[in-house]
Amino acid sequence: MDDIFHYIDDHLNDSLAELTELCKLPSVSAQNTAIEETAKHVSGLLRDLGFEARVLPKQGGHPVVYAEQSGLSTRTLLFYNHYDVQPAEPLELWSSPPFQPTLRDGKLYGRGVSDNKGNIAARLAALRAWKEVRGELPCAVKFCIEGDEEIGSPQMEEFVAEQRELLAADACVWEGGGVTWEGVPQVLMGVKGLLYVELESNTVNRDAHSSYGTVLPNAAWRLAWALASIKGPDERVLIDGFYDDVRPSTPEERAAVEAMPAEEAETLKSYGVEEALTGVRGLEYRLRHLFEPTATIDGLTSGYEGEGAKTVLPARAMAKMDFRLVPDQDPDDIFTKLRRHLDSRGFSDITLRLVAGVRPARTPVSDPLVEVVRRAVVDAYGREPIIVPTMAGTGPLHPFVATLGLPTADIGIGYPVANIHAPDENIRVEDFRAGAKGIAALLQRFAEG
Amino acid sequence: MDDIFHYIDDHLNDSLAELTELCKLPSVSAQNTAIEETAKHVSGLLRDLGFEARVLPKQGGHPVVYAEQSGLSTRTLLFYNHYDVQPAEPLELWSSPPFQPTLRDGKLYGRGVSDNKGNIAARLAALRAWKEVRGELPCAVKFCIEGDEEIGSPQMEEFVAEQRELLAADACVWEGGGVTWEGVPQVLMGVKGLLYVELESNTVNRDAHSSYGTVLPNAAWRLAWALASIKGPDERVLIDGFYDDVRPSTPEERAAVEAMPAEEAETLKSYGVEEALTGVRGLEYRLRHLFEPTATIDGLTSGYEGEGAKTVLPARAMAKMDFRLVPDQDPDDIFTKLRRHLDSRGFSDITLRLVAGVRPARTPVSDPLVEVVRRAVVDAYGREPIIVPTMAGTGPLHPFVATLGLPTADIGIGYPVANIHAPDENIRVEDFRAGAKGIAALLQRFAEG
Repeated sequence: MDDIFHYIDDHLNDSLAELTELCKLPSVSAQNTAIEETAKHVSGLLRDLGFEARVLPKQGGHPVVYAEQSGLSTRTLLFYNHYDVQPAEPLELWSSPPFQPTLRDGKLYGRGVSDNKGNIAARLAALRAWKEVRGELPCAVKFCIEGDEEIGSPQMEEFVAEQRELLAADACVWEGGGVTWEGVPQVLMGVKGLLYVELESNTVNRDAHSSYGTVLPNAAWRLAWALASIKGPDERVLIDGFYDDVRPSTPEERAAVEAMPAEEAETLKSYGVEEALTGVRGLEYRLRHLFEPTATIDGLTSGYEGEGAKTVLPARAMAKMDFRLVPDQDPDDIFTKLRRHLDSRGFSDITLRLVAGVRPARTPVSDPLVEVVRRAVVDAYGREPIIVPTMAGTGPLHPFVATLGLPTADIGIGYPVANIHAPDENIRVEDFRAGAKGIAALLQRFAEG
Repeated sequence: MDDIFHYIDDHLNDSLAELTELCKLPSVSAQNTAIEETAKHVSGLLRDLGFEARVLPKQGGHPVVYAEQSGLSTRTLLFYNHYDVQPAEPLELWSSPPFQPTLRDGKLYGRGVSDNKGNIAARLAALRAWKEVRGELPCAVKFCIEGDEEIGSPQMEEFVAEQRELLAADACVWEGGGVTWEGVPQVLMGVKGLLYVELESNTVNRDAHSSYGTVLPNAAWRLAWALASIKGPDERVLIDGFYDDVRPSTPEERAAVEAMPAEEAETLKSYGVEEALTGVRGLEYRLRHLFEPTATIDGLTSGYEGEGAKTVLPARAMAKMDFRLVPDQDPDDIFTKLRRHLDSRGFSDITLRLVAGVRPARTPVSDPLVEVVRRAVVDAYGREPIIVPTMAGTGPLHPFVATLGLPTADIGIGYPVANIHAPDENIRVEDFRAGAKGIAALLQRFAEG
């Protein structure tokens, strides 16, 4: 692999220049800017590397860039990425313009340099090295690069189902992970799902003078009581059947979590808290964080929210909630159970709206793909990776695991202070270099089977 | 009294013109506009009627207009009023400019025409009639007209205590009530008190990604649980000792409430609800509304309140609450009990701020003043009034009852759709006429003892 690695080293600046050009395109899916242009630009980059590339329309969303190229082995590796980015706002908190990537102190700053254009560019760097040095890829490669990831990948399940044959492969490499605080590369094997809902109470037909608190129903009280019925201070979710489909972690998964570094002290300190909820620590903290579902109030609004006193009995109150789900919980099923819970607890007056649903997915840590990825990481980084059975976050992994039936793993160029989704998003150039080599090695290890 | 009543009739337009001029002054206490000018204008009107009038400074607030004039009887009647008004916003909902009073269909529209400048003007009309027709008032009269009522009368307790001798009297007529939907004049004998607080939860030092719902404390959850601990869906306040100082209603008060008209159907219909809280009806509804304290959530704010989904674990959540208190509850005592409640229920992390406190007060319906006022109402309106033992709302009555030791009663020119505190505030000219006559008759009846 040294010839390939050398090529990556020698052409690192070209790859960073390619990334810089890609990040100049403000493809903010939430704001619907530069979407078509970026999709075309990305498919052009793939075509330059010998891919047959297409921009496919997606029902209810932005187009998907699809590309494929054969290789020495008939085994096919599918890369999932996304070309859309988060909004750059608040702009005033950036040290340099978000869409003019800037190199400072060994780091490249700009929106998308990490999430996810940096990973696209690192993968292209690896593929270019193979093509230029060996003339051919070691295995067949496909790309599925969507433009809606930052707005929840609407209808990705349907798209994958429709394009099942086109996307057929032997394994899938996910959008891009990174290294730990200590610089240890991580291999991520799954994601949580998500159910996002709004709960709304409407009682009287207009705000009333608060002296009517004696006799008129108060929307804020109804909402507070409904919320308190969903989860208590012991953090146990009280919805009947909520935990029914939680898949127990396997001994292999627990062993993997045990081998993970303890980041809890750093996390808690960074958020200024003394201890984690219910006092969990160590392994228990990590198991909770990775394998337990959540019920989170994301926002509350009702009545008078300004300065000082206004004596008003609110006609309307609204809460936003999300539930991070774990396999095999299903957002539609949890939504139904939540509705049933509210009805049975006397809150049939609370309106419940489904805002978004994403299904959870995990590839077992015992899957042979893990060993393939582990070897590639050792080739590129010179050290053993940490195998992370699942992230605590959410992504559209489910259709790739369930519909395509693929084992999946996630490696990439990120690090803990990449500031993704925030001002001054950045990557370290050395992580980009190592990440590109990791992908190059993975192609070889994967081709070997 | 016919000579006096005729004078009021003959000079009604002059009195309305005086009210119109007074309402052109935008004395919005919350916005601190035209305060000094209005205080001077009001003291000038009183001086024109032979009063010795002064503008007294009040610690921590706007000046108070004080005036006095002797009469045939040495008995002294104190009128409490306020010259400040609520903000006129939202301006676009007014049919005519709020500070250019406009007469339409027998109604005068403008900010303050009812609350409370209309009552000042009606009282001046009565006094002028006495002076012009008889040359002298039948009893001594004092006025205490404050400029802070619409912002909670800060430090009125202290002001009354300091001016105890100046304000000494035999009875006090409160700011101004009105007639029912059926046109029956009401005599109001008391007010509820108020405790207004903010509850704030601060957990993490900044909003976190909601995937941390597993391990990081969520301010919105803390607040929801704390609120739900204060009152449950059965409407019973759960603060230890909250009801300890609730003075039971007397048989006379209950009899008075029984004699009141049932307005519940109209109220419930107007707010679009089928039934009152906990299904109370009839006499039970009225007793609850007048004699029971409340715990009301006035506002909620936390995390993401915009459109769609943002997955955020809020660092901060805030609720505004008010408690309408009844004699002999004390806002400071209830505040202490609320703090103790939160601490004992595991919510010592919730910050509690006292925003405003007003003490409740009632004059017994058996007080001789009631008979005096009843006779005056019969003289002026030709019908029996309803005696209302207390309003459900709040006002700075307590120091007049407790510090000055006065019996108090409240009659005035309002009606149920006066839209006080709202756009298109208005009075019916005929209510103004009858109200002025009511005050004129009251002076006579009061002088008689």
